[in-house]
Amino acid sequence: MIILKLGGSLITDKKKEFSIRQDVIDRAAREIKEGAKDTQLIIVHGGGSFGHPVAERFNIQDGFKDKKQIQGIVLTRKAMTDLNQQVITTLLDNGLPVISLQPSAFITCSSGRIDRFNIDIIKRFLELETIPVLFGDVVLDKKQGFCILSGDQIIANLSAHLNPKRIILAADVDGIFDKNPKKHASARLIKEINQNNFNEIYQNLEKLEGDVTGGIKNKVMEIMNSKTNQTIINALVPGRLKKALLGEEVRGTKVIGKTGK
Amino acid sequence: MIILKLGGSLITDKKKEFSIRQDVIDRAAREIKEGAKDTQLIIVHGGGSFGHPVAERFNIQDGFKDKKQIQGIVLTRKAMTDLNQQVITTLLDNGLPVISLQPSAFITCSSGRIDRFNIDIIKRFLELETIPVLFGDVVLDKKQGFCILSGDQIIANLSAHLNPKRIILAADVDGIFDKNPKKHASARLIKEINQNNFNEIYQNLEKLEGDVTGGIKNKVMEIMNSKTNQTIINALVPGRLKKALLGEEVRGTKVIGKTGK
Repeated sequence: MIILKLGGSLITDKKKEFSIRQDVIDRAAREIKEGAKDTQLIIVHGGGSFGHPVAERFNIQDGFKDKKQIQGIVLTRKAMTDLNQQVITTLLDNGLPVISLQPSAFITCSSGRIDRFNIDIIKRFLELETIPVLFGDVVLDKKQGFCILSGDQIIANLSAHLNPKRIILAADVDGIFDKNPKKHASARLIKEINQNNFNEIYQNLEKLEGDVTGGIKNKVMEIMNSKTNQTIINALVPGRLKKALLGEEVRGTKVIGKTGK
Repeated sequence: MIILKLGGSLITDKKKEFSIRQDVIDRAAREIKEGAKDTQLIIVHGGGSFGHPVAERFNIQDGFKDKKQIQGIVLTRKAMTDLNQQVITTLLDNGLPVISLQPSAFITCSSGRIDRFNIDIIKRFLELETIPVLFGDVVLDKKQGFCILSGDQIIANLSAHLNPKRIILAADVDGIFDKNPKKHASARLIKEINQNNFNEIYQNLEKLEGDVTGGIKNKVMEIMNSKTNQTIINALVPGRLKKALLGEEVRGTKVIGKTGK
């Protein structure tokens, strides 16, 4: 089984609210169709310019403080379903038997971390030979009312239960750099992050602005604290996603979690 | 608490695939806003011309027989999310804090009847002062792979756990007639169906054609087997839904379940 993350920055234009990168999702769908035809697959996507701006405007990430936030919850949920339905439609149009599964309907958190997650639902949709698709979402939180559950945390949790052979994070950059590559031309790609070099690298990572799920730092931390290895690749480069799905070597950053493999 | 069903025949044009009755949903939203402002509310809607034709084409209602049905499952799920998202958008636009909850993500069946249903998710979204919105869906079934879960069965189950003060089924007809009112001008409205007159009425009910959830006969049976009283009203008549929500007497059919009240 493979778990594939389609990053929010990849599938949406983060600079413009509610704008999808249809051509990118279309190509990704074709590459998934070819690259994952002989394996079980779960897809998780981010919120990008759909979920993040609304969630941020209402401070959803901080949990319940004020009744005004309820408007933010309902609007964030709607925006995420809008994005998800566009992704689902494109994947279906490309012949992928995808089933969307709304995280807020079957995952709950406690202080921002997953508390209950009915993995059985996912297993059974896999047995039916469908491709479950999940996404970052606003979910119930028993300590703080609600929270934002990132796609990255969903992946870490899924992996712990399902033991995938490969986890690919499809991004709009080649991987993790020593500086933010969108700001610094001199940024250098880090080929592997592991328990030895993690601390040094982590100090240097710049937090990407405007990301309620905490940007690249949180993504790396999520992996380092999990028992997974995940490979970040650039799915804007044609063919790279397909190769990565097939297990071929591509430019990217491998992040080695607690397994130490 | 009130549970409101927006019937598939009400919110879509059942004669034309994937056609929504936007004006009807708009008016319903305004009447809900006025009629349910002082109470907790759960909305459940049907599949109408979105869910039913696809589900029927692939015989989804019979459970797993053939791998070709998988295409039917993914297309039915997408169609239901399409309809649901249009309903959600209209309700939000009218100031109702609705949260859609995908039934297939947190309800599973066994031989077509609800087996597991995480009601806690619904209770907690109610506590946050949002309005949960559910809908008829294709869900996992541990005996037959998958099945169609009707909005009517969801309502019967919700009611058993949440004890609503009122259950209103908003339809496109005045209630239950002794004959199909869409076919017979002489059809007479039945004001109340109870344990005494049920058997006689049931024999006469004509099954509405082309409804994978089993038409009006199943709807009535669902209520008669539950411990609920439900009132069927015609939401095409302006003002009737609002009055019914406020608890005022309106033309319709009251169906008295096992409570005998």
